Amino acid sequence: MERIDGKKISAQIKEEIAREIEQIKQQGGKTPHLVAVLVGDDPASETYVSHKEKACNKVGMESEVWRLNADISQEELLKKVDQLNQDPQVDGFIVQLPLPDHIDEQKIIEAIDPKKDVDGFHPINMGRMVIGLPAYLSATPAGILELLKRYEIETEGKNCVVLGRSNIVGKPIANLMLQKAYPGNTTVTVCHSRTQNLQAYTQQADILIVAMGKREFVTADMVKDNAVVIDVGIHRIPSDKTKSGWKLRGDVKFDEVSEKASFITPVPGGVGPMTIVSLLKNTIAASQNRIYGE
Amino acid sequence: MERIDGKKISAQIKEEIAREIEQIKQQGGKTPHLVAVLVGDDPASETYVSHKEKACNKVGMESEVWRLNADISQEELLKKVDQLNQDPQVDGFIVQLPLPDHIDEQKIIEAIDPKKDVDGFHPINMGRMVIGLPAYLSATPAGILELLKRYEIETEGKNCVVLGRSNIVGKPIANLMLQKAYPGNTTVTVCHSRTQNLQAYTQQADILIVAMGKREFVTADMVKDNAVVIDVGIHRIPSDKTKSGWKLRGDVKFDEVSEKASFITPVPGGVGPMTIVSLLKNTIAASQNRIYGE
Repeated sequence: MERIDGKKISAQIKEEIAREIEQIKQQGGKTPHLVAVLVGDDPASETYVSHKEKACNKVGMESEVWRLNADISQEELLKKVDQLNQDPQVDGFIVQLPLPDHIDEQKIIEAIDPKKDVDGFHPINMGRMVIGLPAYLSATPAGILELLKRYEIETEGKNCVVLGRSNIVGKPIANLMLQKAYPGNTTVTVCHSRTQNLQAYTQQADILIVAMGKREFVTADMVKDNAVVIDVGIHRIPSDKTKSGWKLRGDVKFDEVSEKASFITPVPGGVGPMTIVSLLKNTIAASQNRIYGE
Repeated sequence: MERIDGKKISAQIKEEIAREIEQIKQQGGKTPHLVAVLVGDDPASETYVSHKEKACNKVGMESEVWRLNADISQEELLKKVDQLNQDPQVDGFIVQLPLPDHIDEQKIIEAIDPKKDVDGFHPINMGRMVIGLPAYLSATPAGILELLKRYEIETEGKNCVVLGRSNIVGKPIANLMLQKAYPGNTTVTVCHSRTQNLQAYTQQADILIVAMGKREFVTADMVKDNAVVIDVGIHRIPSDKTKSGWKLRGDVKFDEVSEKASFITPVPGGVGPMTIVSLLKNTIAASQNRIYGE
């Protein structure tokens, strides 16, 4: 069994990105510039945004956080989005979700210029991805592809089973694993809450991608020998053995499944650390017009 | 075995559409107006477009065909698209594919206002469909859903296997069968040219949707007893028994597979006749702002 070390790969990629940005600057190019819009003071959102800011600084990107009051009207927020769309200094921006209840999230997402949509949530980026055109991929699916690449995991012709059909993980990763590309070219099955006899599917999977949001749901008996197991779940449980008072678990029972898997991502330290590098990579791509051209 | 009669259903729906348009007119509403843009004189495209025009007339819609020379420049064609985008009289329009080689099809498709994209080929309509938002669905996938509905075929929790991953059939129908909706909520597997051991998948399918473009490829031994079989293939083969000198076959060996299936679409007369009604339905939806609102 090889443990897929997302922390190590993520650190490597950050170094690569830092070098690339250094080079862009040396050649007189524009420093990539990311803005994160944070509405209200949700503590989890605060943490995510501050991680993103830190990562930007570390690799030499410009970054800003726009902090807006929780009671901002939808119209005002749309104006801010438009301001960011228009600003030539800003290469890409994200609006941290969730938004307060009085704001229609989908409306905000669709107001973002697809060329600056480094979260990859705009339907046009989703559609382009499905069709096989260049597109900003959202962070988690892009992170999974990157891990498969870095560990040189074969995918062509493999049986890939995705558990979960969310718009931010299950659906995009399923569509990506189906593309005529590497990593991809797998036969893809998507299972979800209505799937009958789930085990019959998971037991046949060469590559099992788990994004159901059910703690330690996947057990060893559900997994084929030598399967590649990617765990997207993240759950916080109390622990008296850690300083923080809690520990993290995934959707997969790591201890027992890791004994059967050929490759497996742990939680924490698997897919999680990769999401931030996907965002950084999208921001460089935006600053270099790599997706939509000039 | 029940034969799914696409010809009959399509005739029924055309009557429903004619009644709806009559009602819209009586209430003083705008008559739905479709434009088909035909570049060059490809005979197959001529036939498709004339069928579409005939169908429009039959249900009381306004329709126009814009015939453009094969040597029109891309820029000129983009201007025509823009003209149609701007014209408030035109509710929806299609640019008949394929286009001459010197024109970038994708560029033309993306120039169409998504609100008038009644072919559903714009990436934003594909993306909205995947996310589960209201969207124009392309003709074949929409036709398949309609047949499943009209025959009241249960889908929830079923194992649906799609053969083929094209952008106009395989990928969209797979994403639709996955949605939290009826018809949908199936466990979906997509197989394609790189799939290994194809038979192992097809033999497990409760619903088998075949869009591979290989004549009579699916044989009885590949199909589960009582499966629902939807055949999207269409192949013309010589015949001395017909006046035209040819006959049509699908991707499924109808004679033998129909003995095992619970429901099956024939070729011709199955999915084919449904595509035109999908286009008509999209055009009414466009004229009533049902997808994107006012």
